[in-house]
Amino acid sequence: MEKPTTTSKYKHIVLTSHPGRTSQKPVPIHWGEIDAMKRGPIIGTLTNPAQKNVIGTHSGSYSVYRALAIASGSLQANHRPDFTNTSPVVHIGPYPSWSDPDKIVSLDPFGAVVGEVFQEYYQKEYDIRPTIAITKAHINMPELQDAVNQGILQVDGKILKENGNLVVTKIAVDPVWYLPGIAKRLNVKESYLRQVLFQQTGGMFPELVTRPDLQVFLPPIGGNTVYIIGDVAAITDPDKLLAVRVHDECNGSDVFGSDICTCRPYLVHGVEVCIQTAQAGGVGVIVYLRKEGRALGEVTKFLVYNARKRQEGGDRADAYFTRTECVAGVQDMRFQELMPDVLHWLGITRIDRLVSMSDMKYNAMVNSGIQVIERIAIPDDRIPEDAQVEIAAKQAAGYYTPNTVPDAIALSQIKGRTLSE
Amino acid sequence: MEKPTTTSKYKHIVLTSHPGRTSQKPVPIHWGEIDAMKRGPIIGTLTNPAQKNVIGTHSGSYSVYRALAIASGSLQANHRPDFTNTSPVVHIGPYPSWSDPDKIVSLDPFGAVVGEVFQEYYQKEYDIRPTIAITKAHINMPELQDAVNQGILQVDGKILKENGNLVVTKIAVDPVWYLPGIAKRLNVKESYLRQVLFQQTGGMFPELVTRPDLQVFLPPIGGNTVYIIGDVAAITDPDKLLAVRVHDECNGSDVFGSDICTCRPYLVHGVEVCIQTAQAGGVGVIVYLRKEGRALGEVTKFLVYNARKRQEGGDRADAYFTRTECVAGVQDMRFQELMPDVLHWLGITRIDRLVSMSDMKYNAMVNSGIQVIERIAIPDDRIPEDAQVEIAAKQAAGYYTPNTVPDAIALSQIKGRTLSE
Repeated sequence: MEKPTTTSKYKHIVLTSHPGRTSQKPVPIHWGEIDAMKRGPIIGTLTNPAQKNVIGTHSGSYSVYRALAIASGSLQANHRPDFTNTSPVVHIGPYPSWSDPDKIVSLDPFGAVVGEVFQEYYQKEYDIRPTIAITKAHINMPELQDAVNQGILQVDGKILKENGNLVVTKIAVDPVWYLPGIAKRLNVKESYLRQVLFQQTGGMFPELVTRPDLQVFLPPIGGNTVYIIGDVAAITDPDKLLAVRVHDECNGSDVFGSDICTCRPYLVHGVEVCIQTAQAGGVGVIVYLRKEGRALGEVTKFLVYNARKRQEGGDRADAYFTRTECVAGVQDMRFQELMPDVLHWLGITRIDRLVSMSDMKYNAMVNSGIQVIERIAIPDDRIPEDAQVEIAAKQAAGYYTPNTVPDAIALSQIKGRTLSE
Repeated sequence: MEKPTTTSKYKHIVLTSHPGRTSQKPVPIHWGEIDAMKRGPIIGTLTNPAQKNVIGTHSGSYSVYRALAIASGSLQANHRPDFTNTSPVVHIGPYPSWSDPDKIVSLDPFGAVVGEVFQEYYQKEYDIRPTIAITKAHINMPELQDAVNQGILQVDGKILKENGNLVVTKIAVDPVWYLPGIAKRLNVKESYLRQVLFQQTGGMFPELVTRPDLQVFLPPIGGNTVYIIGDVAAITDPDKLLAVRVHDECNGSDVFGSDICTCRPYLVHGVEVCIQTAQAGGVGVIVYLRKEGRALGEVTKFLVYNARKRQEGGDRADAYFTRTECVAGVQDMRFQELMPDVLHWLGITRIDRLVSMSDMKYNAMVNSGIQVIERIAIPDDRIPEDAQVEIAAKQAAGYYTPNTVPDAIALSQIKGRTLSE
């Protein structure tokens, strides 16, 4: 499509596709097939629309920026990537979970190795993009050096280096939703899920309702990042210990260290437990999920903060969840039932040390068939001052704690800062 | 819509709306009007579809999670929020820029005060949601306490407290795009922009092409967070100094401290400059924009890391941009031309200390009418070891530096770590 000099005409735009409209049938996807060629590639690219076999397109939300780049003329719409040297630095799978259509429904298990397993399609000019990328990095969180100074962590020179530098394998995972599987997780009919997804997003992708033959959806939402500390092979070795923290994004704490919640301190504690486990011959896994503010977004989160701090009696543990419900209609919108998919993709069947107090995450893992041996709470001395309200409210609501669960009287007495302090 | 027990019927679903289809005309939006009632409210909610006057819906990407919550039965589709006590903790504007349709095209200037300025509509049962939320917080980045210990920062007890606690006003801003204005920024026809946005997102929102009467689009992309350090009123006081850092999200560095780039260290330096400016009677502003990996996303970013580290001759400054271009087709997809909007919303017309070396950001600001007095580079001793490649390549490509710009020979000699190190 060239940049037009006259007013555009809409007549060549297909607003909503319907099954069987084009003569060429897209490559079928047989979700859950362990043989990649039998499963079929996920084709979300737009360079040859007739080959597309999914609803939506790749790169999630960033497709909007890609559209801007094309509209402004800085990117060619028909650009095809050169994937030389981009292949994964370590190999993951295949594992038995990859062929269990109940274990993985929200990512493509072959997403990292498309260049390898779909070579035949590339030779036929199919434009297939990876939805998973695996690299290595050195990371440095200032708290790790503090932990070394305090004797909590030891430098071993291989995993944890001098100056608190930590060697990790890191993996970015974009969402790929198999709609029949997502519907099963939600315990609703697929047709109903498609209808609600279409209507409640303001009419995003009519193909959700017009193309029941397309069973895979690339939703424009954030994905996951996995940080592996220690030997990747130890993840599936039953004789080695595995530590895991599954962490939902909280920009205000994770980056800026806001003291109203425990997110960054708990993340750091998770990294510490992963390092200790790796140094003892096991391995640690941190999964970072892009679900800001319990998947309500930051605008809603800040509105709730104001409501909590201004309510009669001030910010207190016994009214913690009520304020979120008043504003958002729910306490939480993260829907943890999809979260274990990435753990199954890694071949995890047993977690020795789960660094999380969330009952929702624990239940989702256990219900998906993962054995959890030990649950590790955030140490009391890591809880920021203003976050006592959150942690007490969550403990009372069912979060794991090795301590006494706060009762109604205790909850009413745990208070946070006011907005003027 | 009730959760059906039988197979859903599609017959009541409107796939694509067209102008004039409903009898009730939506409230018109007159973008750039300084009087909120004349401008008209942004109505993106789905509780009464006939009242909707935008393309898309609110909460960006999180509308997908909202749909899941509704499909699973945990959220009522007709939930209406109770906004008691959620109003902004400080007042921003109105400023002359609010009525200049060229200055602000990607956010709603009235987004924080809808409850105040659109009371008449609320009384008529319109469901209008804030797109901006303003709260206060205490944040703590471990590097700030280190800076106090090193004498770089002083505790004043009001802005910077003991233990490195920093008092901030923070603002979450969701994107609201006025399409004629966005097209003008891209220097293309609005009809062409709409066509490309529709096609290159894989057919997201047919209303982009069928509803030219709806000029406002709520794109499912991340927004901005603004952190204000010091007195908010000083931002628009010509006698007070203003420091600004505009920071594009980089989860790997911002949260985990990856040493391949300068993101977190530069962000921390920006916060330090903001604190020093505020302590001297001025004010500091950090804008955090959700544009992971140059708005290419993390999967592309990690693929590029592998390609850089594995290319012949290793990771080096003279081949830094080439690898991104090979994979992504562009060096950068951030489109900085929309970025100054949030600065104009804050009433900024002059930045005394711009903590950024990016020529793209600088040019976007200056071209939008903001005067920039001083540009502050990241101090050399804050550049992580493996990030020398990035910073040298950027300096050679036009980034601001107070030092000598590296020449071709220097660029070919600046190398990064291999993947096996």
